[in-house]
Amino acid sequence: MNYRVGVAQFEPKFLDVEKNLQTMENLLYDCQADLVVFPELATSGYVFKSQDEVKSVAESAFTGKTATLFKKLAKQYNCSLVVGFPEKFRNQYFNSSILVNPDGRIYVYRKIHLFYEEKLFFSPGNLGFQVFPAKKDVQVGLMICFDWIFPEAARTLSLKGSEIIAHSANLVLPWCQQAMITRSLENRVFSITSNRIGTEINGESKQTFTGMSQILGTRGEILKRMQEKEIGIEYFTIDPTLAKDKTITEFNDAFSDRRTEFYS
Amino acid sequence: MNYRVGVAQFEPKFLDVEKNLQTMENLLYDCQADLVVFPELATSGYVFKSQDEVKSVAESAFTGKTATLFKKLAKQYNCSLVVGFPEKFRNQYFNSSILVNPDGRIYVYRKIHLFYEEKLFFSPGNLGFQVFPAKKDVQVGLMICFDWIFPEAARTLSLKGSEIIAHSANLVLPWCQQAMITRSLENRVFSITSNRIGTEINGESKQTFTGMSQILGTRGEILKRMQEKEIGIEYFTIDPTLAKDKTITEFNDAFSDRRTEFYS
Repeated sequence: MNYRVGVAQFEPKFLDVEKNLQTMENLLYDCQADLVVFPELATSGYVFKSQDEVKSVAESAFTGKTATLFKKLAKQYNCSLVVGFPEKFRNQYFNSSILVNPDGRIYVYRKIHLFYEEKLFFSPGNLGFQVFPAKKDVQVGLMICFDWIFPEAARTLSLKGSEIIAHSANLVLPWCQQAMITRSLENRVFSITSNRIGTEINGESKQTFTGMSQILGTRGEILKRMQEKEIGIEYFTIDPTLAKDKTITEFNDAFSDRRTEFYS
Repeated sequence: MNYRVGVAQFEPKFLDVEKNLQTMENLLYDCQADLVVFPELATSGYVFKSQDEVKSVAESAFTGKTATLFKKLAKQYNCSLVVGFPEKFRNQYFNSSILVNPDGRIYVYRKIHLFYEEKLFFSPGNLGFQVFPAKKDVQVGLMICFDWIFPEAARTLSLKGSEIIAHSANLVLPWCQQAMITRSLENRVFSITSNRIGTEINGESKQTFTGMSQILGTRGEILKRMQEKEIGIEYFTIDPTLAKDKTITEFNDAFSDRRTEFYS
């Protein structure tokens, strides 16, 4: 199956949801893809210093401005879209991403492993690692940023049938892009890491994001990797069904060779 | 704590146990270390084509020629040693490694994830992933070669308290040395991958081994990496107690941040 996927990279403007939504709409202008992944907290920026700031930009996953616009764009381009945003649900705030399909269906992931001061402003994800059907029924697992350092995240998504891991990120540590090669390789799964760029300052807090968004194949091949400061969407055509094949050698299979009785 | 570790790399001669033991004894000639790791199947070579070949070189883990020599060497150099060899136990054959301490104690690991045609000649390991006390009571977890591709192997050894993973290998795939960086990083553990070199031919079977043996720090730093065809032992002084600290940031800990209720 030919399946065209895209990875987006840009610099969100802190707390300016309208502008960030406009930027993402602009980036999609020539989109002819089946799935495009945007960064973590792409609507809001990242360096929160108070929960009031989070509250000012948080939205419902199903009826907020972001959901509304992305439903329109997914239909317009006939393309599944993944985007990270601060989610308000009842009285809780989550660092979430949604998969929005051309038919209007929306699926939510709430970040399970919160990084650094996110713990001050967000509740830890409570929905588990789930795999959702994107366009053409391709199975997409969602995880966010720091989830990468826990091998159990990508493993769980893969054991549950992910063909593609949609990994929205705001990366500040130097290791993830390389480690995701191991994640794709050990699970025989495609991965799309969409990272932001730029330096964001809020009071005394400052973070610099590393770009280098990438699309990886099931052997960990780098199919696309963007530069550190590039803005845009890079596309690549993959065959997601390759991820159903967990063969390593004629004697070895990445999943059936697992000996779970010996794992802690 | 200053703890001097070594990683050995050489080209075993197929089925010539005497010669291979002599080579390893020679490599240790100037050893002033606390722990040295040798490759997988270092006494026998790798490319078996029949179980008779395995039988001809298999030994008891505790009373064989290898155990006997390594007990002598561990005492002589006051150094813990890890070495891979074909183990005979009752009527079974395992691809095993032993940790041999200066006081004569021996601990055995039997390879859990067999690679390729090893499945024809060896029984899968039945002792689990275990952590053993080496010299100065440093906690050493043993795994062998292809175990690297299963994140659960290094994870299990680390959760059980490994400060150093002693990873004896005969690597033929191109990915392991890089993936071990992820293993050390995600587990905040030292790792020593001792690989062999050379091309081994047996009838129509042929394997080329990739060298590049390495010692990695708890942040995945490459403390030592040998060349593809180099022979020798490279040493580096580490502080194994650093592996007790699983801190990633002041808000994050590689182990206590795990949310096992969501892992498959």
